Amino acid sequence: MRHKGFVRTIKVENPSLTDNTADAQRLEKSLQQELNTKHIRIPLQVLKKLPSNLRSWDFKARAVLFKDRYSWILLDLLGPLSDRPVLGVAIDIGTTRIVMSLVNIETGQELGEKGFDNPQAVIGPDVLARIHYSKENSGLKELNHLVIEAVNLNISALCKENGYQKQDIYLVTGAGNTAMTHLFLGIESFEIIKEPYIPCVNIPDTQAAGDLKLEVNKNGVVFLFPNIGSYFGGDLISGVLYSDLDREEDPCLMVDVGTNAEIVVGNKDWLVACAGAAGPALEGGVSKMGMTAKPGVIDQVWIDPDSHALNVHTIEGKKPVGICGSGMIDLAASLFLSGRIDIRGKFSKKVCGDQLFEKDGIRYFILVDKHDSATGEPICLSQVDLNSLTSSKAAMYTILEVIVKNTAGLEFEDLKTFYVAGTFGSFINPVSAISIGMLPDIPVETFKVLGNSSLGGAKVLLKDPDAFERIMKIRQSITYIELNVNQEFMNMFSGAKFYPHTDSSRFPSLKDRI
Amino acid sequence: MRHKGFVRTIKVENPSLTDNTADAQRLEKSLQQELNTKHIRIPLQVLKKLPSNLRSWDFKARAVLFKDRYSWILLDLLGPLSDRPVLGVAIDIGTTRIVMSLVNIETGQELGEKGFDNPQAVIGPDVLARIHYSKENSGLKELNHLVIEAVNLNISALCKENGYQKQDIYLVTGAGNTAMTHLFLGIESFEIIKEPYIPCVNIPDTQAAGDLKLEVNKNGVVFLFPNIGSYFGGDLISGVLYSDLDREEDPCLMVDVGTNAEIVVGNKDWLVACAGAAGPALEGGVSKMGMTAKPGVIDQVWIDPDSHALNVHTIEGKKPVGICGSGMIDLAASLFLSGRIDIRGKFSKKVCGDQLFEKDGIRYFILVDKHDSATGEPICLSQVDLNSLTSSKAAMYTILEVIVKNTAGLEFEDLKTFYVAGTFGSFINPVSAISIGMLPDIPVETFKVLGNSSLGGAKVLLKDPDAFERIMKIRQSITYIELNVNQEFMNMFSGAKFYPHTDSSRFPSLKDRI
Repeated sequence: MRHKGFVRTIKVENPSLTDNTADAQRLEKSLQQELNTKHIRIPLQVLKKLPSNLRSWDFKARAVLFKDRYSWILLDLLGPLSDRPVLGVAIDIGTTRIVMSLVNIETGQELGEKGFDNPQAVIGPDVLARIHYSKENSGLKELNHLVIEAVNLNISALCKENGYQKQDIYLVTGAGNTAMTHLFLGIESFEIIKEPYIPCVNIPDTQAAGDLKLEVNKNGVVFLFPNIGSYFGGDLISGVLYSDLDREEDPCLMVDVGTNAEIVVGNKDWLVACAGAAGPALEGGVSKMGMTAKPGVIDQVWIDPDSHALNVHTIEGKKPVGICGSGMIDLAASLFLSGRIDIRGKFSKKVCGDQLFEKDGIRYFILVDKHDSATGEPICLSQVDLNSLTSSKAAMYTILEVIVKNTAGLEFEDLKTFYVAGTFGSFINPVSAISIGMLPDIPVETFKVLGNSSLGGAKVLLKDPDAFERIMKIRQSITYIELNVNQEFMNMFSGAKFYPHTDSSRFPSLKDRI
Repeated sequence: MRHKGFVRTIKVENPSLTDNTADAQRLEKSLQQELNTKHIRIPLQVLKKLPSNLRSWDFKARAVLFKDRYSWILLDLLGPLSDRPVLGVAIDIGTTRIVMSLVNIETGQELGEKGFDNPQAVIGPDVLARIHYSKENSGLKELNHLVIEAVNLNISALCKENGYQKQDIYLVTGAGNTAMTHLFLGIESFEIIKEPYIPCVNIPDTQAAGDLKLEVNKNGVVFLFPNIGSYFGGDLISGVLYSDLDREEDPCLMVDVGTNAEIVVGNKDWLVACAGAAGPALEGGVSKMGMTAKPGVIDQVWIDPDSHALNVHTIEGKKPVGICGSGMIDLAASLFLSGRIDIRGKFSKKVCGDQLFEKDGIRYFILVDKHDSATGEPICLSQVDLNSLTSSKAAMYTILEVIVKNTAGLEFEDLKTFYVAGTFGSFINPVSAISIGMLPDIPVETFKVLGNSSLGGAKVLLKDPDAFERIMKIRQSITYIELNVNQEFMNMFSGAKFYPHTDSSRFPSLKDRI
């Protein structure tokens, strides 16, 4: 049997001459018993027709509930036999892309999903540009309006396409980074990007959907995941919730490979986190490598065991048009394992032969010949691109090392599970990532792909009331580590810029494969 | 120094690189310390400009607060130097008359008061008629609209006349009987008047003023006093709060003489209450006696010590037009003390002489000759009127006896203070009321006039945050006694219908005056 969610069937005690307690207070009593709490708020909207409703329903009802930090809230009371579904929408409020899922919160069934580009991109591609814009006259209102309008449109579409009514949506849960969460709420966000980097709010409490102009049931509410600071947002708290890190006995790790690599390590007793926005060495990040996945994009590269040539796979098997991030990691691994790049990450003229050419003093490796490419141009990897990838993989490894070893005092081998979250993370081949020294050399089965963990966590909350307290506890218990880019860090980083590392004994599995 | 109210001047800790807690959470921390609580809700409206506000105010602010059952609510944050007043409106939501008071909740100053007839009277004069009407199509909406519109009009007028802005009103506290409270909230009330007499709600929680369509500050809230049941409303809880009964060491009594006589006896440890709506014998009630006070109405009657004639005093000294309730009690006392009526409350032909005439078998006592009256008609008291007064005074005494003696197990002499609340109660001369056996024969200085205690309690709440918990505690701790009109009660009632009582030893102070 499913655990109990936000919709409960209840029985209210019948009134009598010996118990003339008001309807609302008898209802409160039933809910207190059902929910094992003292604190329930019954809004005016629900009170209005309570007496006639309860009597026509023989004092039985379906209660639609949610929580805020201090109490449960009775959002609506439906007839015990009503077949109206009770719906929720989970939203991953990404800077670039927004993904929404429509869920029946009573059955837990996921009814449909929709992704679309964050319309705030017309203002600016990144957080920085948007926040700067929000300082202008009606900038904040405009940015807020853009995202809310798009969400409303997509709620309508999700409902229409799946045969539901938006009036049946009572809960909206949203997870995003701190800036996106602020813009979604329409609250001032400019202090986020200036020293000392202070958000307006860490814990946005449950809000009336109407106050955010979200077009759902008029009693509906919105909950946005709390953040720990400007650089550790609700999307990551949502990810931790989704991964169950906070319930594990043994230490696990979750890395969300987005613009920055954000990492959380811990178990049910402790959680340590850091975000990799730590100075110029780490800028860019792995997610900016390569192009966006679409038909014709090379997403896998491997060494032909016989010819030692590099084979490629493209999305939908189309003629190649370019290479995406996961393809680049495969490529770098193949280049290194086949000796085409050396341990410093430099192309070897000797091994590459005529696959290498030089232009304006920069070397290019031809992965796909111009005759085989869809564009008529060869698909190449330059030494500059490779250097950038080298920096990124070194940064990732260094941050992992800092947090797991230096901070948590563990060895990589102590990790029971290594979760890779984020769309980009879903496609990385861990064997390749290990081969280039980006991920630690632990058993491949340790790695688990989480997918969109920000959306995942938001969906968990729609289905599980206990998640609310877990979220607050996760937020409270995470120790956030500012990455200190000091000499020690730079030394570690320098070692990690080698392939796989200056200390190759850390990557024993590579021995037989080079 | 005044105790601390709902407006507090606070300092929020400045942010720093070593403490990057969000503005809202640092604000929360300041408020938690200031209010000695963990539970504070900060609405979206206050969050919106929080960062720029706090910075422009050097992290100082005036916080406007209120409470609900589970937390404090930050209604607004004003600049530390802002000279905007923070106002509240207390309302006595009477069935017949509504009285409102405009209060500066920061200084406690009362700025103006306004009374007006409850506009729901066009629908029906009493609770019963209105509730019946509320069952019709849009009846409830109409009744609700009538009262809210009138309150809005009078809020505007109160502000205008006293030089204030309604946008500065943050709190509205209202106390009324259970039915009036329901109609004010616009919630179904018809179960109140039918067995088993169940209100929709006992404890209406703090509501957004906008949800009730009250035109005050957009962040404003409304609190309506809770009730104990259909027959014991928020007006009485408000009265207990106002009288401080719940803080007394020694037992005190409060009687609110309205349509029914509602009585509360107790002290800080216990409270017992009953409402005198107990069958036909008690119907009508003292407040229905006589006419409404206006110029020319006889409000005092006394025996001329020399001539033993009855002297009258009229309001504003105008020629008499009729007699009001307090005048009738004086009159009855004078008639009894001068022997014009006997101990059964019947006119004595012998003593009254030609002041008595008979018409259609009913005796009339001429109080004012037609030549002295403003109407050209004599002003009379009929035996029928007198019988009705006799029933009422007997009912009052019997109820007092039941609750003080039979229920609380006290003697009248144990009462430290006997509060008389309600407009009507303000004018009763306790000596006269004792003389006819309506009030017990205890020292006159024991009686204290409370005035409009329903309005008084609502004003207390505007000024004193602790009142919120007191209200909940009063509601919780009152034992409500259903008056059981059994044989014993009827026997007591029969005795009390004599003047002053069959057991005249209960009224020793009368001995020398008859």
